Amino acid sequence: MSFVAIDGPGGPDGAAEAREIADHPFGNPSFTGRRWPLADVRLLAPILPSKVIGIGRNYFAHATELGNAVPDEPMVFLKPSTSVIGPGAAIAMPAVSHRVDYEGELAVVIGRPCHRVRAADASGVILGYTCANDVTARDLRAPNAPWLRSKGFDTFCPLGPWIETELDPSDVTVTTTVNGEVRQDGHTADLIFGLGELIEYCSAIMTLLPGDVILTGTPEGVGPLAAGDVVSVAVSGIGDLENPVVAG
Amino acid sequence: MSFVAIDGPGGPDGAAEAREIADHPFGNPSFTGRRWPLADVRLLAPILPSKVIGIGRNYFAHATELGNAVPDEPMVFLKPSTSVIGPGAAIAMPAVSHRVDYEGELAVVIGRPCHRVRAADASGVILGYTCANDVTARDLRAPNAPWLRSKGFDTFCPLGPWIETELDPSDVTVTTTVNGEVRQDGHTADLIFGLGELIEYCSAIMTLLPGDVILTGTPEGVGPLAAGDVVSVAVSGIGDLENPVVAG
Repeated sequence: MSFVAIDGPGGPDGAAEAREIADHPFGNPSFTGRRWPLADVRLLAPILPSKVIGIGRNYFAHATELGNAVPDEPMVFLKPSTSVIGPGAAIAMPAVSHRVDYEGELAVVIGRPCHRVRAADASGVILGYTCANDVTARDLRAPNAPWLRSKGFDTFCPLGPWIETELDPSDVTVTTTVNGEVRQDGHTADLIFGLGELIEYCSAIMTLLPGDVILTGTPEGVGPLAAGDVVSVAVSGIGDLENPVVAG
Repeated sequence: MSFVAIDGPGGPDGAAEAREIADHPFGNPSFTGRRWPLADVRLLAPILPSKVIGIGRNYFAHATELGNAVPDEPMVFLKPSTSVIGPGAAIAMPAVSHRVDYEGELAVVIGRPCHRVRAADASGVILGYTCANDVTARDLRAPNAPWLRSKGFDTFCPLGPWIETELDPSDVTVTTTVNGEVRQDGHTADLIFGLGELIEYCSAIMTLLPGDVILTGTPEGVGPLAAGDVVSVAVSGIGDLENPVVAG
């Protein structure tokens, strides 16, 4: 199990390649010299974060589709690191829930330790971007209770397929499909709180560490998953995070 | 920086000693042979958890003192690992809050990876117990919002002074003092959900990992801290976790 850098397509033979990173991908990573065709590599979650910070109701149309008010400041919560899975791994529906929803999102991966970052400086602490599915047991969200139970089950945070380090995230599309049918088709230009504001807000509370992930919120169109489904979250300029759904 | 086992008092000279643990304290730890008088050791937080799970309103008298209903199942939330500090380290009051409360608690430290543990088997996954202060910015708890902002600031989770591996936690006292004045004096016999139930409930959601911490809830008597205060959480049979309070 190693970190790899994924280059291409555009290598010598036109196919994407994975180059092994020595140690970790933060700062100025060095390379071991080992490399493989991407097609021969099994991708795991691109990072194991010390914190996964979720943002509730950060698209106007999603806040209102659930009958909620549009928040006047970011609604932040944590998902446990044990909820993280990679591309292709199964989302397990807990038997205790009867309504497990997908929530496709753009995720930001933090690149260096930081605290009290100003929005204008936020791009300097970002390593890159990945796709995320903030899987949510909607029926386990008791009013006025904390959000962990509905958000924290094992497998409830697919991340991947990789971290894109070259992306302008200001207007990418976030498209969620279930069994090939489009269910969410949002644009990050519609975020209520943009990435700089989110990093300023979160880092005013908590020191952010390399590998920490901020899920930026989901657009409208959330809906239920069923065992046997295949759910995909695609962010333009990044790639496609696909996960099967199984009974837990 | 090492893990140590603390023995005594009762050694050859009657004073407590710290013996250096090789690697980590889980499973059957081995020892390097290095040892120091406890008085010469600077204790840090006894563990850096991948998860700190808090439990809301788990003493009847505390639930009602804030005007809240007594929950019919545990109210679980996460504190980030960046909130953890050790004994003697300062609790920093964020300028954005005007009401930062102490919450003295018994904390359980998990000893091995586990999932779906039954309450009756819970003692087998526990490494030991420590004191915790679930510091809370009471005025930042917006109704129906997640709990992270009020619970998650850096320094908001003092743990220590050590992990007691020989303790019957069923009726220990949890005593919080501020500047030497007793403010909380609870008994774990009054927990609404006992340790076995909490571990069953949490591990049904999330895989628990070695070093993960469950804060079992705070008894009645919560109240505000001010810069310059010294707050102490003492659990009988464990020890005394003392932290100064400073402006953040």
